[in-house]
Amino acid sequence: MTVDDGRVTITAIAREAGVSVPTVSRVLNGRMDVSPATRQRVEELLRLHGYRRRGARSRTTAALIDLVFNDLDSPWAVEILRGVEEVTHAAGVGTVVSAIHRRSDSVRQWLQNLRARASDGVILVTSALDSRFSAELRSMSVPVVVVDPAGGASADVPTIGATNWAGGLAATEHLIKLGHRRIGFIAGPRQLLCSRARLDGYRAALEAAGVSLDEELVRPGDFYHQSGFDSGAALLDLPDRPTAIFASSDQMAFGVYEAVRRRRLRVPEDVSVIGFDDLPEAQWSSPPLTSVRQPLSEMGMVAARTVLRLAAGEAVESPRVELATHLVVRDSVAAHH
Amino acid sequence: MTVDDGRVTITAIAREAGVSVPTVSRVLNGRMDVSPATRQRVEELLRLHGYRRRGARSRTTAALIDLVFNDLDSPWAVEILRGVEEVTHAAGVGTVVSAIHRRSDSVRQWLQNLRARASDGVILVTSALDSRFSAELRSMSVPVVVVDPAGGASADVPTIGATNWAGGLAATEHLIKLGHRRIGFIAGPRQLLCSRARLDGYRAALEAAGVSLDEELVRPGDFYHQSGFDSGAALLDLPDRPTAIFASSDQMAFGVYEAVRRRRLRVPEDVSVIGFDDLPEAQWSSPPLTSVRQPLSEMGMVAARTVLRLAAGEAVESPRVELATHLVVRDSVAAHH
Repeated sequence: MTVDDGRVTITAIAREAGVSVPTVSRVLNGRMDVSPATRQRVEELLRLHGYRRRGARSRTTAALIDLVFNDLDSPWAVEILRGVEEVTHAAGVGTVVSAIHRRSDSVRQWLQNLRARASDGVILVTSALDSRFSAELRSMSVPVVVVDPAGGASADVPTIGATNWAGGLAATEHLIKLGHRRIGFIAGPRQLLCSRARLDGYRAALEAAGVSLDEELVRPGDFYHQSGFDSGAALLDLPDRPTAIFASSDQMAFGVYEAVRRRRLRVPEDVSVIGFDDLPEAQWSSPPLTSVRQPLSEMGMVAARTVLRLAAGEAVESPRVELATHLVVRDSVAAHH
Repeated sequence: MTVDDGRVTITAIAREAGVSVPTVSRVLNGRMDVSPATRQRVEELLRLHGYRRRGARSRTTAALIDLVFNDLDSPWAVEILRGVEEVTHAAGVGTVVSAIHRRSDSVRQWLQNLRARASDGVILVTSALDSRFSAELRSMSVPVVVVDPAGGASADVPTIGATNWAGGLAATEHLIKLGHRRIGFIAGPRQLLCSRARLDGYRAALEAAGVSLDEELVRPGDFYHQSGFDSGAALLDLPDRPTAIFASSDQMAFGVYEAVRRRRLRVPEDVSVIGFDDLPEAQWSSPPLTSVRQPLSEMGMVAARTVLRLAAGEAVESPRVELATHLVVRDSVAAHH
């Protein structure tokens, strides 16, 4: 079943699958003129025997990895890309960037392209592919790493995240140290682990300081601008409004800025504001935003190094790595007396 | 010298260059173990005879194009990438993204990677490659298109730009229509054509309205935040300060916002502000910024379509295409009475 170097041959796979050698080739080349059942049988055998495509081996001077986003208009995208590109460029590896828009036709097209270009590794910047597509990706025996700022768990794939709980804690402690006691919190989507971790960090800081949690001060959000504006407005319109608001994304913090401006109030004189992410925009906002920095480009660098190591046949130590967040202090927070 | 289908063979090139066939192969494969003189001679012959690399032909189902930025932290980068990716993804073509940081070692590494992966086309998002590298790129006979928001001229390569003059005109006309007469202008880098076009649009609008130009109101900038802050501060501190400021980039407009805030003034109640670019941040700033939209993702789409047409052997109609800018009105401009 194997040749000298321990690798299975296409001929052997064809024999075992009961198909012709050209059919196995067509499957390997991502051609569409193969029935789904045949493709699946052949791919299972290829995976079972650990077949590595010739393309992926022979193209040693022209290695490629695929970097896949849901959407390129996410403010995270370019930060992560910057880190990935820095590592791959130096390694002489090309980074093919795709956006799948959570649309199945787009994912299907990408998987087909991925097969055809015999990519050496995949970095997914998305919490979850549809299970159908995950199975198809697994069948290709290409190393996969997930960069997941959202903190979704994925047991079977190495995942790079950030310390969301510690970030929530640090931001809230900073406000408490400056005398704030009524601190509003605008949460992220409930179903994301990172949202719950940030909220729990906020709660833990209040508890450690002996400040009792007022549930009225915890408001919903989805990480986008409008929800920050809406929940910020609701907090500002409370009879006993908070002296500080911690929005768990920068975009929501900018929404709070706008809610403050519309009331002819000022950041930070009337309300202190902290964000989370520390996107480049945070330093250009007015006033410059104090924010919890997610090391997005560093996460991209670690993901790229990990996928290159996997592609070289090395193992990785830990299925999930979290890089440290830290608070970047700018001008949007004032002391409360 | 040619075979049946009109294509020159490697053997013929080797004979004419006075080198072995494997040497020609090494040149074609981007290998470094060839002397510079030999490489140059072989590449000149390849180009002269219009040799197309086998890699680029046979990889029909796995075409790649290269998209090259100076820096990925430019606010333009992700917008252009989004447009390019939309076109290439649908065409089954991979987009390999690189940043060259204006460093020659980084450009050299990229050129080597480009050779090795036999890319089918190149989109440069940069005004100018060093002439040495331009020559090397030309020697590869790969189609090149330039996306140039900066408006640099490049006679020999198709270039996609935007109508900078018309954008400068539209923004200034908008302010004049709302009653402003003292309108500050913050320019971009003097050496860029786009900067001069925006300034000329501003001047043309003033002239058409019979408003005489006060040179004191025209201030220098480099498109970045700090220069907008500095020149904005200088304008606000004039004895007879302008009632509106047109910054010729969004980042400089955000710098003006901060200069306004530091003086405890307000946008737009005390000063109206207009930017140029309409980056996504413009809608999240406080107040949301009125700005001249550069169609960056559309420019990326046109560039991608153009390079794919060139790669397919088609000709393009015009060496330079400019896509229309238009004014997006938000909340940073008020009428002046």
